[in-house]
Amino acid sequence: MGDVEETVADVGEFALIRRITGGRPKGAATLLGPGDDAAVLAAPDGRVVACTDVLVEGVHFRFDWSPPTQVGSKAAAVNLADIAAMGATPTGLLVGLACPSTTPASVVDELSAGLAAEAARARVGVVGGDMARSDTFVISVTALGSLDGRAPVTRSGAMPGDVVAVAGKLGWSAAGLAVLGRGFRSPVTVVGAHRVPAPPYAAGPSAALAGATSMIDVSDGLLADLAHIAEASTVAIDLVGGLIPVDQRLIEVASALGADARHWVLTGGEDHALAATFPSASSVPPEFRVIGSVTRGAGVTIDGKAYTGDPGWQHWR
Amino acid sequence: MGDVEETVADVGEFALIRRITGGRPKGAATLLGPGDDAAVLAAPDGRVVACTDVLVEGVHFRFDWSPPTQVGSKAAAVNLADIAAMGATPTGLLVGLACPSTTPASVVDELSAGLAAEAARARVGVVGGDMARSDTFVISVTALGSLDGRAPVTRSGAMPGDVVAVAGKLGWSAAGLAVLGRGFRSPVTVVGAHRVPAPPYAAGPSAALAGATSMIDVSDGLLADLAHIAEASTVAIDLVGGLIPVDQRLIEVASALGADARHWVLTGGEDHALAATFPSASSVPPEFRVIGSVTRGAGVTIDGKAYTGDPGWQHWR
Repeated sequence: MGDVEETVADVGEFALIRRITGGRPKGAATLLGPGDDAAVLAAPDGRVVACTDVLVEGVHFRFDWSPPTQVGSKAAAVNLADIAAMGATPTGLLVGLACPSTTPASVVDELSAGLAAEAARARVGVVGGDMARSDTFVISVTALGSLDGRAPVTRSGAMPGDVVAVAGKLGWSAAGLAVLGRGFRSPVTVVGAHRVPAPPYAAGPSAALAGATSMIDVSDGLLADLAHIAEASTVAIDLVGGLIPVDQRLIEVASALGADARHWVLTGGEDHALAATFPSASSVPPEFRVIGSVTRGAGVTIDGKAYTGDPGWQHWR
Repeated sequence: MGDVEETVADVGEFALIRRITGGRPKGAATLLGPGDDAAVLAAPDGRVVACTDVLVEGVHFRFDWSPPTQVGSKAAAVNLADIAAMGATPTGLLVGLACPSTTPASVVDELSAGLAAEAARARVGVVGGDMARSDTFVISVTALGSLDGRAPVTRSGAMPGDVVAVAGKLGWSAAGLAVLGRGFRSPVTVVGAHRVPAPPYAAGPSAALAGATSMIDVSDGLLADLAHIAEASTVAIDLVGGLIPVDQRLIEVASALGADARHWVLTGGEDHALAATFPSASSVPPEFRVIGSVTRGAGVTIDGKAYTGDPGWQHWR
């Protein structure tokens, strides 16, 4: 064999599932971990929050742009952010992996390590997994969470008079994608933000405790996701242009690329910031910055006017 | 457009997710259904059982052999069977779908209908979903369940002196696959068993209540899955050849194809029968048939001898 690289076909399905799920920190909520037909997780208040996301090579990630560790971390992060957006604390992850049988086993190992590292950042374990052969590399992650007695924070509870606030980074992933698209690999902080989002997990339960009336994780773009809240709550949202946070770093990168940093902030998805509405500015927890208000009507505006840039990312179009 | 068929790209991601998850029976455990960042399900005893399975076109199903409705039903059934194999009752499903953007929207609609129908058979709802574009058609399903206060039945509790018993069909899926592989479409009952397994969901909780010491769902083949129990429990399992149920229908089909019906029963996966061990023959619930016993040692034998046919299905080899 010599220096021929070991593939997933060489290792075999069961051994690889053990590699994905085995030998990692268990997470406090794991009652029965991987290795059986199913796992058992604590659901202390008698309810479980659950969501699922699918990531496809060439669509959501590219191994020539992101090493497998970062792809794994991202796959975990996008799901854990959805749990946080309900006001819940994550309790566990399950992962389904479909990949070509010629995939180096090291790619699966590194991807699993990234997934487990992000899970550990959210204090949960990877409690279940499945693998299959596929021409396309597809990662499907399911995250579970606990509300610990709180009501879930949905998209539909925003009321006229509420303030709109965001927690976490905005526009960084879009900036990183633009940098990579031009063939650059730096600045590292911007490129890294595209490769692995850093959702503010703890801000989700904080918002719920502070009485958030609605919340969403920003995955399609700030304006697109606020439009989901506006539609579900049958309200209008007006942002204050001067309050929209555009990081100095993004302005520098945009300037170098001849791009518009504010456009990234308003329409770039995949940072998995949290956007929420609160009954008053005084109830907004410290992780959040107020950027606008909820009014009667429909749609999302900035200083009363529609934004005329491109809409948020639509996978199919 | 005339008779040009509508594709998933025409319909768009959000509309399709709504089609997958919307307008179906909710399931008694659904507290907050699809349409938000995550769903909320009841977990009445403070625990949730969770598992995930990935199905790939060309590996686990073929649309030229199985209509999309049946592929959807199968994707649900294989996961719900894993929940049953823990002794749990299913409470909800989440589905991730990756498919080419040229896929007819009707395929997704029919697949969703099949998924929802099987979910309804298990009295649960499809509470979450995600869609992505992919060159390969991949379905990832996560099932959740409730133990209702019972201990989970793992693979590792079998004890020497226990009896081994099975519930549900064995060998039918393998027979159906053999029929289809020869280009036939009948007998319909056999072909249908390959297209959509009919796991005995209620037998899982029954077994748990009856004191089952271990349980597994038969997805890799009876001998292969009993070997998982033997290994996890560090025991040996000996089957009584004369007790292994080979349906008369399978014998007829095998005879017509020049195949071995008993081989299908012993090694055919994908029927998602349940195999379990019980402390005594008198404790075995009516859905199960005793086929052998647990002894000291290792491995699985029939009448004391190793089976020399092919091993169970290995996805990667």
